[in-house]
Amino acid sequence: MSSTYSALQDECLYANLSLPKTGLVDLTFGNVSVADPQLRVFAIKPSGVEYPRLTIHDIVVLDFEGKVLEGQLRPSSDTPTHRYLYLHFPGIRAVVHTHSRNAVAFAQAGLDLPVLGTTHCDYFRGPVPVTRALTPEETAGAYEWETGKVIVERFRQDNLNHFEISAALVRNHGPFVWGPYGGAAVETALALEIVADMALKTLALNPAAPLAPAHILDKHFLRKHGPNAYYGQR
Amino acid sequence: MSSTYSALQDECLYANLSLPKTGLVDLTFGNVSVADPQLRVFAIKPSGVEYPRLTIHDIVVLDFEGKVLEGQLRPSSDTPTHRYLYLHFPGIRAVVHTHSRNAVAFAQAGLDLPVLGTTHCDYFRGPVPVTRALTPEETAGAYEWETGKVIVERFRQDNLNHFEISAALVRNHGPFVWGPYGGAAVETALALEIVADMALKTLALNPAAPLAPAHILDKHFLRKHGPNAYYGQR
Amino acid sequence: MSSTYSALQDECLYANLSLPKTGLVDLTFGNVSVADPQLRVFAIKPSGVEYPRLTIHDIVVLDFEGKVLEGQLRPSSDTPTHRYLYLHFPGIRAVVHTHSRNAVAFAQAGLDLPVLGTTHCDYFRGPVPVTRALTPEETAGAYEWETGKVIVERFRQDNLNHFEISAALVRNHGPFVWGPYGGAAVETALALEIVADMALKTLALNPAAPLAPAHILDKHFLRKHGPNAYYGQR
Amino acid sequence: MSSTYSALQDECLYANLSLPKTGLVDLTFGNVSVADPQLRVFAIKPSGVEYPRLTIHDIVVLDFEGKVLEGQLRPSSDTPTHRYLYLHFPGIRAVVHTHSRNAVAFAQAGLDLPVLGTTHCDYFRGPVPVTRALTPEETAGAYEWETGKVIVERFRQDNLNHFEISAALVRNHGPFVWGPYGGAAVETALALEIVADMALKTLALNPAAPLAPAHILDKHFLRKHGPNAYYGQR
Repeated sequence: MSSTYSALQDECLYANLSLPKTGLVDLTFGNVSVADPQLRVFAIKPSGVEYPRLTIHDIVVLDFEGKVLEGQLRPSSDTPTHRYLYLHFPGIRAVVHTHSRNAVAFAQAGLDLPVLGTTHCDYFRGPVPVTRALTPEETAGAYEWETGKVIVERFRQDNLNHFEISAALVRNHGPFVWGPYGGAAVETALALEIVADMALKTLALNPAAPLAPAHILDKHFLRKHGPNAYYGQR
Repeated sequence: MSSTYSALQDECLYANLSLPKTGLVDLTFGNVSVADPQLRVFAIKPSGVEYPRLTIHDIVVLDFEGKVLEGQLRPSSDTPTHRYLYLHFPGIRAVVHTHSRNAVAFAQAGLDLPVLGTTHCDYFRGPVPVTRALTPEETAGAYEWETGKVIVERFRQDNLNHFEISAALVRNHGPFVWGPYGGAAVETALALEIVADMALKTLALNPAAPLAPAHILDKHFLRKHGPNAYYGQR
Repeated sequence: MSSTYSALQDECLYANLSLPKTGLVDLTFGNVSVADPQLRVFAIKPSGVEYPRLTIHDIVVLDFEGKVLEGQLRPSSDTPTHRYLYLHFPGIRAVVHTHSRNAVAFAQAGLDLPVLGTTHCDYFRGPVPVTRALTPEETAGAYEWETGKVIVERFRQDNLNHFEISAALVRNHGPFVWGPYGGAAVETALALEIVADMALKTLALNPAAPLAPAHILDKHFLRKHGPNAYYGQR
Repeated sequence: MSSTYSALQDECLYANLSLPKTGLVDLTFGNVSVADPQLRVFAIKPSGVEYPRLTIHDIVVLDFEGKVLEGQLRPSSDTPTHRYLYLHFPGIRAVVHTHSRNAVAFAQAGLDLPVLGTTHCDYFRGPVPVTRALTPEETAGAYEWETGKVIVERFRQDNLNHFEISAALVRNHGPFVWGPYGGAAVETALALEIVADMALKTLALNPAAPLAPAHILDKHFLRKHGPNAYYGQR
């Protein structure tokens, strides 16, 4: 039986199922949502359900105000963070949250992921920022909503473009990543983890490793993204 | 042919077989026991048997006084440690021991596993403590029984709640983990190893990485555990 | 339907497909080309195509002047680097480029991969050199061509023999590796990654780890390569 | 067609084939030999042959003087090292050589693998020693024979018991491990690699990590080995 939101649930299911295959998630950590910005609705993984058991009927659909439109299960406890990002980063269509270990290490160390090489530049036009810690008041209140807020706050403060840097590291927590569709956001979450692994090893070898220069950063980002991209097929 | 303890042996077998799948154990290191606190008996893996060969008939059943009730094989050499924990941490129903490598690193380094992020907080309401070293007398005596003693000693000294911190690192040895049933204790043992990996990488990046604040620790532990938990399904 | 270049395309396809099996590549990073120096042509992976989808018909054939002779898809964006190496390192028949993580760490750290042990000596008769960074002008110009140039420049400067050291680390980028045929170049790329892993761990244990002495370097390289080799079968 | 040495070749083949499954070997690095000390002969892997292609007919049999008794292929280039160990460590029946990465890191760093915990003590009754470097003369001469010599030299110097410490790290090279039969030596080679991984991580956390005390070392080694062992089944 198909519903109004079957296509959205299907894309969301598929993206969630691809997560454990990437090695990005342990246990039940991690979730993907996929939105339809026109309809102002998004589909998201239910909370704490093991990946192998997940079916399309488990995928919860909510509107941008947070009201559940479809699904019997509780949505992911991180749902308000996803919702905050859809409301404040116009144009994104999917959000991925993981506890992938290398990205978490930077979040826990309180360090922006620095631009050390072209693998980073192929995906992110600048360092991937770490948010500030949440205050006791924010934590006691609408915690997951406030988590979205500190991400957007950091982007506003530093005037970052959420299309050019499509990930953030929530301090003491882990990465949130977004993109134009489910599969792209999952790919970016994987790229983030790979780049964080490379950065960990680079800094172990040389704590004063020089940043990739701005001309390399722009070259690699723009040969893959933007109007004059020539990486990949047309 | 089913026996009085078949159900217990079955849960114990299943939990032991899940261990190598998690990647937590190398060779024949590691064992799980499952107890019936009403009957004051527990089932445990036999000593030094390879996982692929393990059947339900190999699982040894003992009473809380250490007498073998069923099974032809020697129980795990760590049996007295398991028994000590059942006697002194009332309410636990399963104990897991592994030599998982990241947790062992903290045990060998003599460092409590610090609370650096929310993955830790989701499982443990505080640092996972390292015991003191055993004395020559304790080692020459009932070594494995004394191993249980130094775990409980550390919990008493620091007034730790064994439901809130359901693991300990035995110095120069490795982790013991417990829980309400076999699968839950194995999951916590896996979470411990993941969190230890994240902590190793975090401290490599920033030896002065700040601890997760208490309000984050409580928020994450309590949204998953306790009466007002809202993580997972009802 | 077979073409003039089927054999070359086939060797190139096979070598590209072996890359993800080695664990050297993540996502679509990495590419292999195979040349026929007599005909002055080479076959190369198309840009940004996922490995599981790759067929022989996707493999692009170009001449040494860079003109596409066969194939409907865009060749790898790194094609001019491969071409530069074929033109300036006479005798090589295959080039592999990866973003393998340990080798990238040395490239990003700006450190030549030092000769620390016999595994290194079995493959490379000296440190694997890191190039200088490209200038803004080189980056704005024929970037991938200039990438080949800085590799060859480093070999000329230090008077390195490209048969004895068949790899280079492009600064802030990653490894380029070459060899007498596709499979050999892929094997060397894998050996490079393994040796870089060993070096990372060695330097973590002992930042002042002594280099393997020259007599060990020569012994191991020459027992495997050169006229008096006695490693392997005749 | 069975020969005088079929049983020895079979045990040797089986042990060699188990090596890549352990993850201890990359490419064609690594080899196992199995000896019959009564007959003063040993069987060994041929040089540079890929594991998946190995059959019983490829296994070379030599006598303790180094003369080939059976087999058409060249024996492993490390054969003289194996032979030296059989001649000088009476009672051993199998030798394993790998380039396993964590053990190599200690060999390259020039550091004995220290006794940091019980996993180590379960296998080795003391640090696993690193040899001195070979001189230019030794390297120019019978290099692989001299490699065996520096292992035995270190054991004599420090008065080490080759049954209690059944492994050595050849400086700038990697581990040689021995035991009472093929499978046991491979298990010890795997244990060595695991223990080296734990030690690497321990020393990263705490460069001044305390050694496991002697009473723990003896307790764990002797509960598993020796006349009063109670680990495992009778």
